[in-house]
This record gives sequence, C-alpha cells and structure tokens, in this order.
Amino acid sequence: MSGTSTPQGPRHVIVRKVERADPGALDGLGRAGAATVHEAIGRRGYLGADIAARLPGARIGGSAITVLSHPGDNIMIHGAVETCQDGDILVVANTAPSTHGMFGELLATSLMARGVRGLVMDAGVRDLAELNEMGFPVWSRYVSCQGTVKSSPGSVNVPVVIGGVTIHPGDVIVADADGVVAVPEAEAAWALDRSSERLAKEEAMRSKLAAGELGVDVSGLRQKLLDMGVEYVDEL
Amino acid sequence: MSGTSTPQGPRHVIVRKVERADPGALDGLGRAGAATVHEAIGRRGYLGADIAARLPGARIGGSAITVLSHPGDNIMIHGAVETCQDGDILVVANTAPSTHGMFGELLATSLMARGVRGLVMDAGVRDLAELNEMGFPVWSRYVSCQGTVKSSPGSVNVPVVIGGVTIHPGDVIVADADGVVAVPEAEAAWALDRSSERLAKEEAMRSKLAAGELGVDVSGLRQKLLDMGVEYVDEL
Amino acid sequence: MSGTSTPQGPRHVIVRKVERADPGALDGLGRAGAATVHEAIGRRGYLGADIAARLPGARIGGSAITVLSHPGDNIMIHGAVETCQDGDILVVANTAPSTHGMFGELLATSLMARGVRGLVMDAGVRDLAELNEMGFPVWSRYVSCQGTVKSSPGSVNVPVVIGGVTIHPGDVIVADADGVVAVPEAEAAWALDRSSERLAKEEAMRSKLAAGELGVDVSGLRQKLLDMGVEYVDEL
Amino acid sequence: MSGTSTPQGPRHVIVRKVERADPGALDGLGRAGAATVHEAIGRRGYLGADIAARLPGARIGGSAITVLSHPGDNIMIHGAVETCQDGDILVVANTAPSTHGMFGELLATSLMARGVRGLVMDAGVRDLAELNEMGFPVWSRYVSCQGTVKSSPGSVNVPVVIGGVTIHPGDVIVADADGVVAVPEAEAAWALDRSSERLAKEEAMRSKLAAGELGVDVSGLRQKLLDMGVEYVDEL
Amino acid sequence: MSGTSTPQGPRHVIVRKVERADPGALDGLGRAGAATVHEAIGRRGYLGADIAARLPGARIGGSAITVLSHPGDNIMIHGAVETCQDGDILVVANTAPSTHGMFGELLATSLMARGVRGLVMDAGVRDLAELNEMGFPVWSRYVSCQGTVKSSPGSVNVPVVIGGVTIHPGDVIVADADGVVAVPEAEAAWALDRSSERLAKEEAMRSKLAAGELGVDVSGLRQKLLDMGVEYVDEL
Amino acid sequence: MSGTSTPQGPRHVIVRKVERADPGALDGLGRAGAATVHEAIGRRGYLGADIAARLPGARIGGSAITVLSHPGDNIMIHGAVETCQDGDILVVANTAPSTHGMFGELLATSLMARGVRGLVMDAGVRDLAELNEMGFPVWSRYVSCQGTVKSSPGSVNVPVVIGGVTIHPGDVIVADADGVVAVPEAEAAWALDRSSERLAKEEAMRSKLAAGELGVDVSGLRQKLLDMGVEYVDEL
Repeated sequence: MSGTSTPQGPRHVIVRKVERADPGALDGLGRAGAATVHEAIGRRGYLGADIAARLPGARIGGSAITVLSHPGDNIMIHGAVETCQDGDILVVANTAPSTHGMFGELLATSLMARGVRGLVMDAGVRDLAELNEMGFPVWSRYVSCQGTVKSSPGSVNVPVVIGGVTIHPGDVIVADADGVVAVPEAEAAWALDRSSERLAKEEAMRSKLAAGELGVDVSGLRQKLLDMGVEYVDEL
Repeated sequence: MSGTSTPQGPRHVIVRKVERADPGALDGLGRAGAATVHEAIGRRGYLGADIAARLPGARIGGSAITVLSHPGDNIMIHGAVETCQDGDILVVANTAPSTHGMFGELLATSLMARGVRGLVMDAGVRDLAELNEMGFPVWSRYVSCQGTVKSSPGSVNVPVVIGGVTIHPGDVIVADADGVVAVPEAEAAWALDRSSERLAKEEAMRSKLAAGELGVDVSGLRQKLLDMGVEYVDEL
Repeated sequence: MSGTSTPQGPRHVIVRKVERADPGALDGLGRAGAATVHEAIGRRGYLGADIAARLPGARIGGSAITVLSHPGDNIMIHGAVETCQDGDILVVANTAPSTHGMFGELLATSLMARGVRGLVMDAGVRDLAELNEMGFPVWSRYVSCQGTVKSSPGSVNVPVVIGGVTIHPGDVIVADADGVVAVPEAEAAWALDRSSERLAKEEAMRSKLAAGELGVDVSGLRQKLLDMGVEYVDEL
Repeated sequence: MSGTSTPQGPRHVIVRKVERADPGALDGLGRAGAATVHEAIGRRGYLGADIAARLPGARIGGSAITVLSHPGDNIMIHGAVETCQDGDILVVANTAPSTHGMFGELLATSLMARGVRGLVMDAGVRDLAELNEMGFPVWSRYVSCQGTVKSSPGSVNVPVVIGGVTIHPGDVIVADADGVVAVPEAEAAWALDRSSERLAKEEAMRSKLAAGELGVDVSGLRQKLLDMGVEYVDEL
Repeated sequence: MSGTSTPQGPRHVIVRKVERADPGALDGLGRAGAATVHEAIGRRGYLGADIAARLPGARIGGSAITVLSHPGDNIMIHGAVETCQDGDILVVANTAPSTHGMFGELLATSLMARGVRGLVMDAGVRDLAELNEMGFPVWSRYVSCQGTVKSSPGSVNVPVVIGGVTIHPGDVIVADADGVVAVPEAEAAWALDRSSERLAKEEAMRSKLAAGELGVDVSGLRQKLLDMGVEYVDEL
Repeated sequence: MSGTSTPQGPRHVIVRKVERADPGALDGLGRAGAATVHEAIGRRGYLGADIAARLPGARIGGSAITVLSHPGDNIMIHGAVETCQDGDILVVANTAPSTHGMFGELLATSLMARGVRGLVMDAGVRDLAELNEMGFPVWSRYVSCQGTVKSSPGSVNVPVVIGGVTIHPGDVIVADADGVVAVPEAEAAWALDRSSERLAKEEAMRSKLAAGELGVDVSGLRQKLLDMGVEYVDEL
C-alpha cells in the first residue's frame, strides 16, 4: 500500500477531484487488453498473477478511483462511492494483507448505478454468483465470505500500491482474463498509440505464423540463438 | 482437524447416528447462500478462501457427515458412505495437510445414489470433468490426480476442524460460489430466521442503491467517517 | 528443472530428433484421462496440483517436446517450434521458479499451424481470452501478463523436471481438468493396456455403486476397517 | 478462530475466571516438550508448522489465556492482561488471517510483571531483539513491524482455534523449538503420565540404538516391511 | 517493482547522483529500530514480513542505493557498486518475482570496501556463512544457492517498489530483527524527532508496566472496551 | 518424487548396494560448500530455497542414501538405516507433499551410530533441540511435531526427486547454510576439480575487490552494460 505521506503523518482524506484520461483512451486501451498494453508501455504496470479475474469474459478499461483501507474494514469503500462516475473502475488496497470479503452485491449495485465498470480488490470479494448475474466484473486476490467491520479510517483517491505497482487516482486501469494493468493518466494517449501499433504488428505476424513461417526466421532469432552458444544437434 | 479426544487416547470410530437439522432449514439456508448465512449468524462459520467451489453454479445446503482421514488415505471416506442419507453433504478433514486427490467419480456415484448433495474436502478432488457431467458439486482445497492408499484408520462422524471452524456431524453446511459456511445444528432454525431478515433488508437496500441513493447516507456512515477523523477535500 | 549434465558442464542444445510413441497410444491415453492413467501406471507421473488447466473442457494426449528456459526469457520456446509436429504437446520448464507470462497467442498460432495439441508451462501464460477462442488448451502454474526478454540460452528436447516428475522428450503427456500426467515413451503401450483395463473395471464398479451397493462391501473394505481397529458405534 | 456462539449471536466478553491445571502438570509437560506430549496424547493438539519459535532455546509449559481479536487490532490483548497470572501463556487468535505485528516489548513487560511465561500468536510479533534480551519467548506465524489499531471488539478467554486445534482457556500449552501443542485442561494429569512413560521408553530405546541395534529389529518392523510387500534386493 | 516511466518507455540508466539524508539521521533512525520508526512516521514504510533478517543481531540505518534487475540476473548489482558510499544500504528489486541467490560474498566484499552497511534484497542471497563471518548483514526474501546470469539490462538509482513500499534512491533504510522500514529522505529529520519522542514515551510506559500498572488503565482503554460493547463476566 | 518405474508397475524395494564416490571427494565438496559446488557444476543440482538448514553452522558432504515414503509415514526411514554407512547422508522424499515431522532424535541416534553425517528431508523434522545438542544437522522443508504412522510401503535407494533435482543413491550431497546441492556420483571428481578452481579464482577476486577495485572493471562488465543499452547519467 502507499497513501498520503506528509511530514505531519498520515491523514485520512476523501479526495473529491480526480483528473481522468480521455474516454476514448479508456475504451481503446480496454479493447487492446492487459497483455498488449503492458507490453506497449514497456512491460510495466502489471499487478501480478494473484490479482485474478473472478468472472469470465470481461475486458474493460476505465479510470481508477482508489481506496486505502484497514484490513477487514470496508467503511472507506462506502466513502468512495460518491466520488465515482461513469467510466470509472474502483481500486481497493489495504494497509496490510487481508483475505476478507470486502465487497459484494450491494456495493456493486451502488457502483453500477453510477456507471462504474468494475472492481480491482487487493483482498477478497463475495456474492460471486450475484455479481455474475449483474454483469459487474471483479478482479481480486481472493474470493471470500469473511465479513468486515466499519471501524477504522482510511483514504479515498490517494496513491496506492498493489502488486508492486503504484496507482494514482485517475490512472487508466485495463483488466481482462490475463489480469490487471495500470497506466499513468498522463501516458494514456501515448499508451493507446503504442498499443495500436503493437496490435497491427501482431496482426501481420499472426498471418505469417498461421501460414507456417517460423518465428525464429521472421524475427531473426536463429542467429541470436547461435550467438548465445546454442547448438543444433540431431540427438544427444 | 479435531476428532475424538477421550483421555484413553484417540479411538477410531464410525458413528452411525447423526442428529440432523430440519430439512426446511437445510433448503432455506442453502437458498440464502454462504455469505448471507455467514453474516446472519454473526460472521462465523466460514471455512476460508482456500476451500473453493470447483464446479460452476452450485448453491446447496445440507447436513454434515464428517470424516477424519490420514493424509493420502481415503479408506475412511468409503467407510462413511453408508452413514449418509438424502440431504447430506460429506465433509472430509485430515490429521495433517494433504494435497492428494482423495475423491473422484466412483465415490460420487455412491453418494449420489444415497441422495448426498455435495462434498467439502480439505484436500484434493479429481475426475472433475466427470463430476461436472454428473452434476455432483465439490468444494475443495485442491484439484489433484494424486492417488491414495487404503492403509490407516480414521473416524467418521466425529467433530472435525477445517479452516479454523469446528464442524460437528449434523451441522448445516451451506456452500456456493463464495465458499463454505457451517452452522451448528442447534442454531439452524435461528440462522434461517436471521438469514431471511437479512435478505429482506438487503432487498430494500438494493432498491435504494439502484436508484442512486448513497450507502453513506442511507446507513449514516458519513458522520461516522467524520468522527473517525476522515476529511473531505477537493484535492491533496 | 533438469537438462543436460555431461561432465563438461551444461551445454545449450536444440535436439531435433525425438522418438515418439505410437499415435494410437497418444489418442487412447488422452481419452483415458490424467487420473486414470496416473492410477494405471502405479500412481506415478502426476505434475501436481499447481499445474492447472487454464481453459475449460480440454482432454488431450500427445508427445512431449521439452524446453528448458531461463526464468523470464522465452527465446528457447521460439527455438523449439520447428521441432514440433502433429500430435505433440509443448512442455516448458525453467532453471528456477518463474511467474512470467512466457506464452501467448502468437506462439500458439505457430504451434497450431504445426498440429501441436496444447501447452504445459511451469510458469505463466497470457492472452487467455485469445487462446480460448483459438481452442488451444494450456496447463500452467500461473496466468500472467508479465512480459519476457530474449537474452539467455537454454535447451530444447533435453530431460526436464516439473512438479517432481522427470519428462523426457517423446514421453506421453496426458492433460485434462485434473491436471497433467507424464508417461515414459517406452511404457506407452503398456500404460494404454492398463488404462483400458482400469476403465473397464471402473465401469463395472460404477454400475454397482449407482445401484446402491456399497464400496465397503464390493471391495471388502469393511473387514479391513475392523482389522485396523475401527469400531462401529451408534453414538459417541 | 472460534469464540462465543450463542444463538443470540456473537457477544464480546472478557471472562475473568479460568480453570487451570495443576502447576506440577504445567511444569512436567513443559519439560517433556511439544513432540513428546503430542505423541503421548495420541498425535493430537499440534498447532502446525507455521506457528514457529521466534527466539532460540525456550521450552515452556503453562495455562492458556485466550484472546480472539479482529485482524490488525490489538485492543483485546490489552484487555486480556489483567486476567493473566503466574504460569500462564497468552494465546492470541484472529477472526481472519492477519500478518500484523500485534505484540511487542511493552505488552511483554506487562505480562512478565504478572508471571506470564510466553506468547502464542496467530499473527506477527515485533521487537524481537528486545524480547530476546528480556527473555520472553514467543511463538508466532510471522515476525512483522506492521502496526495495529485499537478499534474493534473481540473476546478474552473464549475458545479459539489455531492451526486446526481448538484451545479453551486453561488448556495446557507446551511450546519449544518444534512448535506448540495444546492439551485439554482435564487431560493434563493423564497427559503427564503418558509423557513420562514415553520418555522412559525412549530413553531405553535410545541406549539400544546408540549401541548399534537396529530399529527394524528392536521394534519388529522388518517383518512388517515384508508383509507390506517390500523386497530386499542387492541392486535394481 | 517500479523504475523509470517516461512516455518514451523504459530506459535503462545508472544514475550517479543521489541526495542523501544527514548522517546523524541515518544513525539515529538505525538506533531507534524498524518497529519504532514505522510507528513514528504513521505506520508506513514497512516492507512486509517476507523480507527477513538473515543474520542475527544487526540493527542498521543507511541511505538507499536502489537497483532494478531482471529476475535471475545480477549484472545491475555489479553496475551499482560504484554509486555506493559510506553509510549506504543496497536495495535490490526485480521486474518480477525471483528466488535466485542474486548476492554473495564477493559482492559483499566490494560493498564493505566502500562502507556499505548492509543489503535489502527482494530475491535470494547466498554465502550466508561467509556473510556472517564478514559481518555484512542482509535482509532478503529467500536464502538460495541458485546462480544468476548477466544478460539483461535494468537500472540503478531509480524508484523501486518492495513489499508495497516505494523506495527512492537516498531514502533512509532502517533494518533489524523485525524487518525493514523505508523513510523518505525529506522526512528523515522529522522521523528522527518523532522516533525519539516515541522512545521516551515508551520508556516511561515501560517503567509503569514493569511495576504492575495495567495498560488498560494507564492508556484509558478500559472505557473504550466498554464503549465498544465488550462485557466483563466472571464466566460464560 | 520419482522411484522405480518398470512396466510392471511400482515395486517396493530396499536396495542394499550403493556405489559411492571417493571419500576425498565427499570431504572436499563438503568444504567447498553448496553455492560453490552449484556454480562449479554449471548451476545445477540445487534443491531450492525451501529445503533449509534447521541447525546453525553445519557444512557437510556425503553420499546419498535415498528413501521414498508415503506422506505421514516413516516406516521406510527405519528400513533405510541398515543400508547407511560412515560418510552417508540420508535423503528422504515423499510420493506427495507432506508437512509431517517424519524424523527425530531416535532415528538420529541410530544414524549417528552408523556414521551418517546428516539428513535431507522433503517434509518436517522434530526434536530440534535434541538434534542440536547431539550435533546431527538437518535440512528440511518444515519443522513439525506432527506424528507419523508406519502403514504404507515405499522404497530405499531408488532415484528420488526433491526440488526439481533427481537424486540417485550414491550421489554426493553438499549442504550448508545456503541449502542443499546434489552432484551425480560419476561427476564427483570433476566437480571437486571445478570447485577448487572456482575457489582459487574467487580468492584472487576477493583480494582485488577488498582493495577497492570494481567488479565492473575487473570483469569487463562496464562495456557489456553499455552494449545492452544502459546509460550512465548524473540524474534523471
């Protein structure tokens, strides 16, 4: 996790204003998908294999609304709802690891009413069957029933860290079956350009490979293998 | 795990008689689902995030038939089958952690013939494709092919512990996509009342939230946030 | 992992010739499925619960083409493609644990063009949605976006170890919803015989159990339970 | 975890009266050590390999004072101090997994002033260097700096579950380099007798083995090996 | 991990100039210890329970020299050595999880020659016996022999993330038996003041507690417990 | 795990004859230590970070006597004792993961009477305090009290796999604070030569580094860094 860090010590704040990327970038990056965007921006921004898609089939892009909570306490998620708007994705971190089921169908109902596209949770989610019926996609570290309290303060729309990646409010979140990637808001347009280029190149490559051309030849890797000392032999 | 604990040391027993809850409570709690029941009885009884649904879509309630086995040995599961009856759920614990595939389609065939509704396994299950076709739902810590022996004694219908929860034979098991919750048999009727109340309240709340009302207002959390020292600010 | 081990130290080789089992054995063992084959050959060859099916519904058998890579580096997978042929399954190990997404849709396109039936990866895979659409099944330790480099040499078609099982090039790989089992190439015909016998026995047993006969009686386990000191009691 | 479970839902209580075992049993079981006591009472009561000794050399026995806390919140430990007396061991469980450093030198100072012999913590401890200097031994799941809040109620001296073992207040805790074992208070005298017998037998066995006699001969295992189908061969 | 993130994509850089905190602050924070500093700055900066002390007895403070490496590749650590000076602590992160033994006695010899006080490694270290003899303390996620290559570029003195904490070059690292805490360089003086205050308060509290006063009375927690609904009862 | 694999299915055998390496090689490789030997033979043979030294200070080399056990069952360890002789190290694998305390002081007494130098256990050990007093070093995946049964057959002196490394009876085991490395018996002399060369080179390098020379200069890595695209900059 991260959060506020003024020399006056941690403050607990709910920040109302969030600078968001262009809606076109949100949609475009969402369509490109997590793996493509991760590669396009230089193999950065991936939240790791443990933040997994919990409902099949979703692929979304949106603006991060961030929450920093105390483990086992979801009061700050309730506090975050009114800062959400159409095209947002709620991103919840904790000050220490938590396996609780911090999010369920009621919070999802609230968020859907505001146009939120999905949830990224560094803890557990529950009501999976209901979330599936509602069509509200979630990415989380756990699926868990474990209930929470509403006792300890945290913050909304401060920087948070999940899976080694710092996420600022307004950063673009791209999430699909491969997991979740965060793109700094200021890099959104550039990231979309790079992703589009990459998709075009992959399309060209795919045609060649489907036709039976070899990647080691198309990409010049055969010489690189030899240069690294790899020997081609018929048998050992 | 737990099991028998008389000062004469551990005995290996198969207990035939099990006191079960009212069938209506089994069905009602099953319909309410794991998360609702867990909350309704005071955030208790959840077996944890690692005992996961291995087949999609199931939501069941039933009476626990408990098995305490030696890791990597499934002879006691065979011994438990004849103590099962319509409406039961088989619950298998081990005296130490096990990753073995202790249960598969043949045992499921036997259990289905007796009206058993599903399996909760603190180890692995296998024959997942076949179990899916048969419609026999399983919750387990692992999916695993690893075969077992039939060499070491254990017990049937003694108290067991899974995921920090003590389960007595006859306790009500509620299992769905969110995991597994155990309710003491003596609390079944009360738990159903509480769950029904909770479902009614949630239904009312859902309507308000879907209409755009905010949880912080409906539930009076805004003042609590302020009391805890959370500040609303426009920007940091 | 394993690999070449001549006293001259590790060599990096791409071995072209692989002795494969009879196509009929590949298909037959694939149909029998991982759990059945694992049991049939004496509870051996299972790669463990962490190498999991990442796409639903697949059940395949094929010949192992093996890759030993440096973690986070997929150049050797590219080097392996041209050694693959119809009926093969690509098996990728690493010299140390890796969570990277070492395989995606482009490599899958290449492999499908050569008739490869699937992938077993002791690391992560990505492009899961695309692999699902293509119908190219994968078994892996992780799903991960994390991109790789192409910098360090490894080997193709040397013995590798995954999950405690040594896999030689040409060994038969059987993979389904229960995980992955490897059968030494020389044992393929014998393994198919044993698996067929086992399937026939299970079919007979299944009929009895579905009719309500008890496994403890059919298999003579009741006496064994008593011999081990298990007592039948009405209550504790 | 476990705790209170009346049909009125969870209550938060601090229970003052605890029935403790005879001081002689506490000391005797402590001297016997965790592995011996675990075996002596029928391979029960072991809290598992993850609850590890965090300071070298300690071996203690004492009466459990139990705490059930919310993760990341140590207010109930403070509430438990005054229920402790000479010969006790504090045992802290949580309602869900916690990695927090819930205990440090100040609480240890308080407990030492009351004659408490050590701590068993199903979470983290901190101030390890200071605890070592003070000579206050701790067994815990983690070592962690992570600070806690004092916001959510729990209970003191209710049954708790750690590592699959139910611990009632007053149960005997035995802890050493091998981990922690709990003995029901009512079984303390019997457990001490059984442990003493076992120690005597082990002493006799140790002399024989040190003199070169073989366990397979002394314990009659050679025939058992043959009965199980093990063959002695000179080479494969 | 983190690293450079210009819209031009990742660059691989070795940054020579690092702004460091006052040497007095390094020493003072080192003496205060990880847990005290973590609390003093508002429960921030802790790298988590998995980054553990691998040699007994050390407690150090120093300035972070940061390295971002490819997993299984230690060339960037070699590249970092010449940017180190007296009072520094080397901090190594990876672009993805790594279990390799990325650091041993030769690198330690180089660092000691430059006055470096210790190592924080988000991977493995080896030559533990030799490091212990040399008196060069290490904190790491693993102890591991696994050798590395020198093939892929990374960066030196860019921001890195370990255990959810962002560390900038020059930040103050405090490490002892409880783990590792990072303090932003700009907050060093303030953190030292806060830590000193806290140590003084703890000293006063320690005297009271050692004399038998109760924390619930000294800190006014008894009323808080009652306010939270905790009941004092003689027995359940 | 591995074991016998004849097409007749698994046999359970105790193999009496083991070909061992020259005693001088055992001692020399032991002195060189695990990390040096692992590097010397081409970064092979390391059993991984989870097989850890459980007693401080030991560094040994010896010949592997291998055991393949059923999890939670130590009868085969008893069966292995008489195949051990002076200079051996007992290596125990399981057919599936086990956390049991499969080894303690009585077995150690037997082994010490036969000149065995230590134990490598892919499960738990117990009686740690006693083993420490006896001076019998152990490397294991867990420390655990959990008792075992003596019910299921396995094998002695068949090939086993631990941590991805195949160990044949008679292979040289090198173990110290960094973990465990296995060297094929046939490579022992070569491995000793290579290790000695490496130690000599390291000694020379150590002197240069201690005198302040830089590894990037001594080893020519500075140019390699530049070739890989790493830029030296004063600040970002």
